Amino acid sequence: MTAIATQTRSDRRKVLEAALEAVQLRDQFSPFKESPSKKLHGEAAPRLGKERFQARLGKPFELDQPGEIGRVGEAEISPYTRKPLGIDYPRCDKDALIKAARAAMGSWAATRPDTRADVLIEMLFELEKDTFETAHATMHTAGQGFVMAFSGSGANALDRGLEALVYGYKAQMDVPDTARWTKRFLDPEPVTLDKRYHRVPLGPAAIVCCATFPLWNAYPALTANLMTGNAAILKPHPSSILPTAMAVATCRRVLDRAGFDPNLVLLATDSPDQPVTKELIAHPDCRIIDYTGSQRFGTWIEQNAGDRLVFTETAGCNSVVFHSAQDFEKAAGAVVRAMSSFSSQMCTAPQNYFIPRSGVRSGDRVIAYEEAVQILVSAIDRVAGDNATGAAVCATVQAESTLGNVEAMTARGEREGRILRHASPVANPDYPDARTCSPVLIESEADNEDFYGEERFGPIGFVIPVETAEEGVERATRQARSRGAISSYLYSTDEDFIEKALPAYIAAGASVSVNIDGGMPVNFMAAYSDYHVTGLNPAGNASLTDLAFVAPRFRVVQTRRKTG
Amino acid sequence: MTAIATQTRSDRRKVLEAALEAVQLRDQFSPFKESPSKKLHGEAAPRLGKERFQARLGKPFELDQPGEIGRVGEAEISPYTRKPLGIDYPRCDKDALIKAARAAMGSWAATRPDTRADVLIEMLFELEKDTFETAHATMHTAGQGFVMAFSGSGANALDRGLEALVYGYKAQMDVPDTARWTKRFLDPEPVTLDKRYHRVPLGPAAIVCCATFPLWNAYPALTANLMTGNAAILKPHPSSILPTAMAVATCRRVLDRAGFDPNLVLLATDSPDQPVTKELIAHPDCRIIDYTGSQRFGTWIEQNAGDRLVFTETAGCNSVVFHSAQDFEKAAGAVVRAMSSFSSQMCTAPQNYFIPRSGVRSGDRVIAYEEAVQILVSAIDRVAGDNATGAAVCATVQAESTLGNVEAMTARGEREGRILRHASPVANPDYPDARTCSPVLIESEADNEDFYGEERFGPIGFVIPVETAEEGVERATRQARSRGAISSYLYSTDEDFIEKALPAYIAAGASVSVNIDGGMPVNFMAAYSDYHVTGLNPAGNASLTDLAFVAPRFRVVQTRRKTG
Repeated sequence: MTAIATQTRSDRRKVLEAALEAVQLRDQFSPFKESPSKKLHGEAAPRLGKERFQARLGKPFELDQPGEIGRVGEAEISPYTRKPLGIDYPRCDKDALIKAARAAMGSWAATRPDTRADVLIEMLFELEKDTFETAHATMHTAGQGFVMAFSGSGANALDRGLEALVYGYKAQMDVPDTARWTKRFLDPEPVTLDKRYHRVPLGPAAIVCCATFPLWNAYPALTANLMTGNAAILKPHPSSILPTAMAVATCRRVLDRAGFDPNLVLLATDSPDQPVTKELIAHPDCRIIDYTGSQRFGTWIEQNAGDRLVFTETAGCNSVVFHSAQDFEKAAGAVVRAMSSFSSQMCTAPQNYFIPRSGVRSGDRVIAYEEAVQILVSAIDRVAGDNATGAAVCATVQAESTLGNVEAMTARGEREGRILRHASPVANPDYPDARTCSPVLIESEADNEDFYGEERFGPIGFVIPVETAEEGVERATRQARSRGAISSYLYSTDEDFIEKALPAYIAAGASVSVNIDGGMPVNFMAAYSDYHVTGLNPAGNASLTDLAFVAPRFRVVQTRRKTG
Repeated sequence: MTAIATQTRSDRRKVLEAALEAVQLRDQFSPFKESPSKKLHGEAAPRLGKERFQARLGKPFELDQPGEIGRVGEAEISPYTRKPLGIDYPRCDKDALIKAARAAMGSWAATRPDTRADVLIEMLFELEKDTFETAHATMHTAGQGFVMAFSGSGANALDRGLEALVYGYKAQMDVPDTARWTKRFLDPEPVTLDKRYHRVPLGPAAIVCCATFPLWNAYPALTANLMTGNAAILKPHPSSILPTAMAVATCRRVLDRAGFDPNLVLLATDSPDQPVTKELIAHPDCRIIDYTGSQRFGTWIEQNAGDRLVFTETAGCNSVVFHSAQDFEKAAGAVVRAMSSFSSQMCTAPQNYFIPRSGVRSGDRVIAYEEAVQILVSAIDRVAGDNATGAAVCATVQAESTLGNVEAMTARGEREGRILRHASPVANPDYPDARTCSPVLIESEADNEDFYGEERFGPIGFVIPVETAEEGVERATRQARSRGAISSYLYSTDEDFIEKALPAYIAAGASVSVNIDGGMPVNFMAAYSDYHVTGLNPAGNASLTDLAFVAPRFRVVQTRRKTG
């Protein structure tokens, strides 16, 4: 199929089969390299990746796409250096893009699912080759730290892509190619029909990406669409175009080499003052929308997309309820690290800490409420404060407006609650101009849900004193139901308490981690195993990955005729 | 589980497994009795069914449902006798119904899919027991002939129900109950998590049924919802309540006997002057809508249902293209019979006949255009004219307004085209007052698409002369794309022509029957084998049955904790 394949067809088939088995067992699996270690990649790879990234700065990014009508890119400003990347990208007419995407779908949709899976697995491994460069591109647009960028735009994103690919493959293979059907009607002679079932994609699709994780949600949407025969137009956030543009270029190259129309994957760029998303998704031929970003815009799309197929992953009001713990300090350290990581710009970061006024049992003693609060504050200081690890953990704040959120919540906290810990810049020795911010921690009365009871984007945490842990569960799950939640956290050593609490989370569509206090990032979501976003509350209507994420993207047209 | 089960659990399991195999092969299958023959049902069954139906007339229909606020039923007037059925049904407050439906879902959703499948298969076989009575109820509300009513509200509908059930079962079983997941992070000691996956339904669902086929689409929507853990509120057309009310009563009895809340299946009635559908589906807790009915209202729902999950099956502009035939008279007879059957009130009935001006090759001669037209007219006369079989084939016209359509199209045909055959009453010896109508056949210029290029509901056919059969395919598939089509028909003895034509149908999302000219009703759609409605054109967004019809009705909430 291609002269310079990274893998043979039988290698790719093995990857497909292993991934199919992994999603059936929802077991740990990955064919990709998660760590940037030189032991895995060789001495030169990190340096070469960085050099390739640097060589892109200040130059036009060329993509041979139809309908180019201008150039954009001025909104890409590194949160590390605060300097523009100086790259410009083609801005293409949306009608031309959608027309090209539609035209590209014909022969792709008619290709056997096996062949499509082959090409897409090849594509994922080709994308992996660029991971060092992609990591730098992600750092200097999304603002992530290098290690997170390497895994989050590399293996972890590719794994989500492969996961969605195998679900799409499963859904396609559920439809047989043909059937021979025989039935007796009134005549003594039965009728036999030969039937052919054609899998027809619904698209094209528009994939609207977010600024802080440009590829992690893009890859699964991309493979879900391509695997089911659809073309995809990726619309990156205007401040994070580069990682997506690089991925689109690689996808187009792989498709072209494999003999397919590269317009199956297209880039739609825009600028903050001339946004294109609403126009793009309102186009009558845009039939599928994959959206990652703010809940406000996500909900607007869900409500206004008419008869289009819409998949959203937005944000929620993630909670931690402390009832009791084997070791409260360990538990506090685990959740606080998740909050500090990338300055709470991950959709799984905890925000609201419900602590009983009567304190939290930890091992054989009870930690009083005020002491528990101080332990949380100290834990933030330790992980995010002005020390050597802070810069790596907190990374940067992607958007200036997020600092505005922190200021506004702090001001409101001063009026309506109590500031337990002030936000502060995080020293970054490599990038003295980096836009950084350690978390603010605010105490709020439990009844002031208008204050803390929704997502407050950025490094903002709330401590909410409750009469009992049960009250915490009640409030946390009610807010999950009404305002959304992606990850919830519960700590208790009392099995009866846990068993009584879990049904409330389940009913709220809120996935919950119980008593995870270390050994791993508590908010780590594993492809093939963890369902990410339930689709059951306002944090999104789609899940990575279930059959619902792939099955509606194509339908079956049948032809039938009498045999003989 | 139940003291008076019709089948043992192992019998039901065999039915489930056989149906699972049938949908995988899309083979002929049915565990239900399609024919009303006394040989299958015994001497007494037909008489008893009719007596039970008659015993219901003029009496209140009791259903022990929450929130009863009145009685309705005055719009049920038999199209056979033109007399009111005189039955009244509870009208319940929509808020009370939705609240009860939500409350009923808890323990049902927490029940294992196997157990749910057991109860639902039992339910289908219990529904089958009432088929004779249901057939009479369908005749005197929907207006179908007895044989069609027996199969269409009996075995054929139950088969669609079982088909959707097994798809729902497959989708549920694709999610494992638990996983044990182990991964090494930075510590040398790997982390192991125990994960539990909870299938959580999205509903409750509202199932909006149509007047002419009250159960055929209701059963698959019902089982798709129940199998995935949802409660369902059935909203029958006010002129066809009885079949649905009977089914709801049976479902509630089966659920109750099996130890589940009967409010998993509820009836929402209304009257023509106080319709409830829009209010019901606008309720914030109504999360799923299954709709069968007019394209106009179906499209309105698709456009206006916001973030609800919507499944529609509406209507299309079904075409027949004649290129050539082994035996044109046979082919014409087959499609004309499908048009005459139940006076074109089936969504698979052909409407538009494209005939080349140069004629149609039939065997070794060419039938001139005018002769072809006359063959169609004669075929209609033969099957639907004033003869012994007409009443059984054409049955009745469900709604007075449909006769208005026939009149309006006839008047327009007289101005804009040519009336090839006038509609006329069909004598019915058993029911002299029956509302009947044989098809009108109108010739229209091909360019007058505004006239024939959309669904004209009722016994209305158009003959459209085209320069070539290719032009017929082009027009038919373009109209399918823009106006919808559920069943298309193509006749040609030229394999090259067929191979060139099929991609146009596939691209339009229009399933097509090729050269079927007898031995079976050409528009017969078999559960387990034929995908009914593609979901790819305006005739509906859902298909019976694919994974897309079931998978989005539930999602997964996970709980995870460290082992040990």
